[in-house]
Amino acid sequence: MEMFGDNSCPSPCNTLGFLQKNNSLEEKGRLAGQKNLLSCDNSDRDARFRRTETDFSNLFARDLLPAKNGEEPTIQFLRLSTALPRCWTSTTLTSSWRVWRASTWSCPTNPSPWSRSWWTAGTHSNTASGQVTHAFSTSCLLDWTSLVWLESGSPPLLTPTCKFTYEIAPVFVLMEQLTLKKMREMIGWPSGEGDGLFSPGGAISNMYSVMIARYKYFPEVKTKGMSAAPRLVLFTSEHSHYSIKKAGAALGFGTENVILLSTDERGRVIPADLEAKIIDAKQKGYVPLFVNATAGSTVYGAFDPINEIADICEKYNLWLHVDGAWGGGLLMSRKHRHKLSGIERANSVTWNPHKMMGVPLQCSAILVREKGILAGCNSMCAGYLFQPDKQYDVTYDTGDKAIQCGRHVDIFKFWLMWKAKGTIGFEQHIDKCLDLSQYLYNKIKNREGYEMVFDGVPQHTNVCFWYIPPSLRGMPHGDERREKLHRVAPKIKAMMMESGTTMVGYQPQGNKVNFFRMVVSNPAATQSDIDFLIDEIERLGHDL
Amino acid sequence: MEMFGDNSCPSPCNTLGFLQKNNSLEEKGRLAGQKNLLSCDNSDRDARFRRTETDFSNLFARDLLPAKNGEEPTIQFLRLSTALPRCWTSTTLTSSWRVWRASTWSCPTNPSPWSRSWWTAGTHSNTASGQVTHAFSTSCLLDWTSLVWLESGSPPLLTPTCKFTYEIAPVFVLMEQLTLKKMREMIGWPSGEGDGLFSPGGAISNMYSVMIARYKYFPEVKTKGMSAAPRLVLFTSEHSHYSIKKAGAALGFGTENVILLSTDERGRVIPADLEAKIIDAKQKGYVPLFVNATAGSTVYGAFDPINEIADICEKYNLWLHVDGAWGGGLLMSRKHRHKLSGIERANSVTWNPHKMMGVPLQCSAILVREKGILAGCNSMCAGYLFQPDKQYDVTYDTGDKAIQCGRHVDIFKFWLMWKAKGTIGFEQHIDKCLDLSQYLYNKIKNREGYEMVFDGVPQHTNVCFWYIPPSLRGMPHGDERREKLHRVAPKIKAMMMESGTTMVGYQPQGNKVNFFRMVVSNPAATQSDIDFLIDEIERLGHDL
Repeated sequence: MEMFGDNSCPSPCNTLGFLQKNNSLEEKGRLAGQKNLLSCDNSDRDARFRRTETDFSNLFARDLLPAKNGEEPTIQFLRLSTALPRCWTSTTLTSSWRVWRASTWSCPTNPSPWSRSWWTAGTHSNTASGQVTHAFSTSCLLDWTSLVWLESGSPPLLTPTCKFTYEIAPVFVLMEQLTLKKMREMIGWPSGEGDGLFSPGGAISNMYSVMIARYKYFPEVKTKGMSAAPRLVLFTSEHSHYSIKKAGAALGFGTENVILLSTDERGRVIPADLEAKIIDAKQKGYVPLFVNATAGSTVYGAFDPINEIADICEKYNLWLHVDGAWGGGLLMSRKHRHKLSGIERANSVTWNPHKMMGVPLQCSAILVREKGILAGCNSMCAGYLFQPDKQYDVTYDTGDKAIQCGRHVDIFKFWLMWKAKGTIGFEQHIDKCLDLSQYLYNKIKNREGYEMVFDGVPQHTNVCFWYIPPSLRGMPHGDERREKLHRVAPKIKAMMMESGTTMVGYQPQGNKVNFFRMVVSNPAATQSDIDFLIDEIERLGHDL
Repeated sequence: MEMFGDNSCPSPCNTLGFLQKNNSLEEKGRLAGQKNLLSCDNSDRDARFRRTETDFSNLFARDLLPAKNGEEPTIQFLRLSTALPRCWTSTTLTSSWRVWRASTWSCPTNPSPWSRSWWTAGTHSNTASGQVTHAFSTSCLLDWTSLVWLESGSPPLLTPTCKFTYEIAPVFVLMEQLTLKKMREMIGWPSGEGDGLFSPGGAISNMYSVMIARYKYFPEVKTKGMSAAPRLVLFTSEHSHYSIKKAGAALGFGTENVILLSTDERGRVIPADLEAKIIDAKQKGYVPLFVNATAGSTVYGAFDPINEIADICEKYNLWLHVDGAWGGGLLMSRKHRHKLSGIERANSVTWNPHKMMGVPLQCSAILVREKGILAGCNSMCAGYLFQPDKQYDVTYDTGDKAIQCGRHVDIFKFWLMWKAKGTIGFEQHIDKCLDLSQYLYNKIKNREGYEMVFDGVPQHTNVCFWYIPPSLRGMPHGDERREKLHRVAPKIKAMMMESGTTMVGYQPQGNKVNFFRMVVSNPAATQSDIDFLIDEIERLGHDL
């Protein structure tokens, strides 16, 4: 499959030079800075600040803890890591410079070993001013260094500059563009074309989708407000994340104009219900605008049938958004990506690497098929931030597309993880988690004292079940049993928290009383963790 | 002054126990976990994982780099830091537990030395599930450890759980509440009562202020949309941050209904212009809703006259928001907080510790005088996240107040900095930056080749000026000079970036051609950095 090809990787080089207007993305990726940071070559003060000569060129992320026998490489790796902030601090306090350097920008198929060519940096010096958040301190550096430890096998040197203009965060702007392009390719949009941003979470990404849908069909709302549009309605599953309703409230649609769609017994939207509700809304004089299809619902892990929903959206000319906050990660898996079949027909997609893919919170992307619409919707062209008369191509100043001003550099940890694990690393992670949840499902589906909330193998890692204590097992179905069963999961969870051994979430859903929902997103979890969970539920719940 | 009293500090103790309903905030602050993490007492595998016995109890943040002679303590400190993640990784992979432990929760007046009692942790184990973002990896830990290195003098042990329920991030929920209360006290709201949240940046905080103002006066918009309200207008300075306009666009008001207020020559709102525009809007049938007063404008660093604006807001019953994203930090300074006089009369305040106070991006607070209004405005009561039948007081589940779902734990770095620096540390930081900007102002105000954009000592650290190259000095004022001068700052900045020595921002403003805006927020900057900047401008600009 093309997504496992690695065709966007420029060859390593060390060209010196400054970014000029009209450099292509690839050319910018090859530009390198003027100093070898790791060698601390402007510090003559103390040999301690010189580079530690440990060789990590054959070290992969998978060699570090939690890997078996990972202690020794992890210790060595952490030791090296501490040398770098000292080096950085010592040099930057006495000098001014800028640097960016990166040889291999692409998000690779296979994991990469540690390499000096991963180094990267934003702009910084004590005298770089004009941006109110640039201030340098040891802490800033360490914020980033730590992220690198993690999954990369290498501590790059960099400053945590915020993202709104290219000059402030050149490396991160380029990383973001390249990574978003790769994500769009995996969605299936031709050549990965389109638009996108990293946002502070899936709820905000979903909010963006509603904003840009409104801008696409009623651009005058930007200047004149909602009074310039007819009464618009949005559609989303009754099982969808509450952020669609929150967006409806915040953006001035009103929650009553967010119409909830019925689902089948597995929690998937029934397309016929969508069409019926569109027709009904139109008959009432409302204007249908937007449909959200969920790829991986919060509770059941359900995947709405995107292709059938897309057919209806095309028929009625509606914006199709896919909320893949939880399920988007499955695009990385050749075995499971068919569950998102049709996602390439969406106008926009939410995909949170901080969920299924294990990137530390926050890391969420809003991906958009049409280029330019994010900027059209959100830009205010504030002259004091986005000056048009800079000496570089200001289309790289991406900040005005966002509803934020400065943005946390969420891209970097994701990009590094991709470098370290490769696409196949993410695939293995995801396949393993889905295998584990199937292990749980197989273990309890016919076990005494358990009832599944829905039949069949879960689509995602969500396994939803009731534990029936012995005292309820013989009880006839009815209100009394329902009331008692409703209290079982909260009690067991409370006891878990009291004893501090484990914790598993529960919730009611529709007319179903409280049930447990186990999700597996942790690649370090094992079958024995699952066994332990079941043992704990039975130990704590036996006498209820 | 009361803000420099430290009256909310419970005494240290090590009580064991689990949180129960009805515990007060102070009681919760004293609860401690069941394991001494630092001693790694469940790891018998390797002596390397035992606690490093370095004593940091007399080490303060100010002793570390960039302090003079800070190398040795910093190196020792970093070495200890690497022991902790190894310890954590080794123990957590083989066991399950939860812990929280903290003896002194308050935001202190004076800096605190390193202390074991600062340790803190969220919930984690391999088998704690049900939250899709909990996954543990070395990286998660290091994300937080790094933040601690920085300003604290101590690496606590903790997981980067996200904030939406108390059970998932108990420590951070409490930290957030205590810190927001302290911030509200510094604003001057009685007993620090009120509400608030940390949000992903000042633009989002400002957006919250508009949302809750609308909810306060027209709560039915939440369910019915903007069509349920009359045509609402918002007021903000022509010098204010563009996020107010962005919020107007996003929330369905429309940018044309964000009315810009005229300012005086220093960039401060003219109160009479506000009143005139309110009256004009009412006469046109619009309904004035909201006034934003800026405390520290982006370009001039101007402080709007809050008291006079508050008088008008009271007279016309409008919501008063103070955007102190940039200037809020001055509340920490006894010398400069008078510039925000009247802020206690605001209904809501934006205050970004990630700007003037040096907290790494992102760290922004929206503070609200009326309790409960954030929840009223934003809550959707999703049963799968916010179950009412938990065994603890669910008013600590603060997530539903936000437009986000999971939130990045921005509070922690700020809280730690406050512990390490104390209020007086922030005060020194701020006073020093303002002194430095005054040094710059004094240096150039009468210097040949410089013109100030406005007269008088800047209110904040923003120093706005033109550099006039010798070729323009004799030229008569007029269009030709304006056009040439407009191109000077971009050219000098481009040359600065080419040579990589320094960087200072520029922008036009109103009818003023491009001028430099130097801001100082970096406490490591020195007078010689300022001297260097001026030398560079003159070196690079001399022949233009």
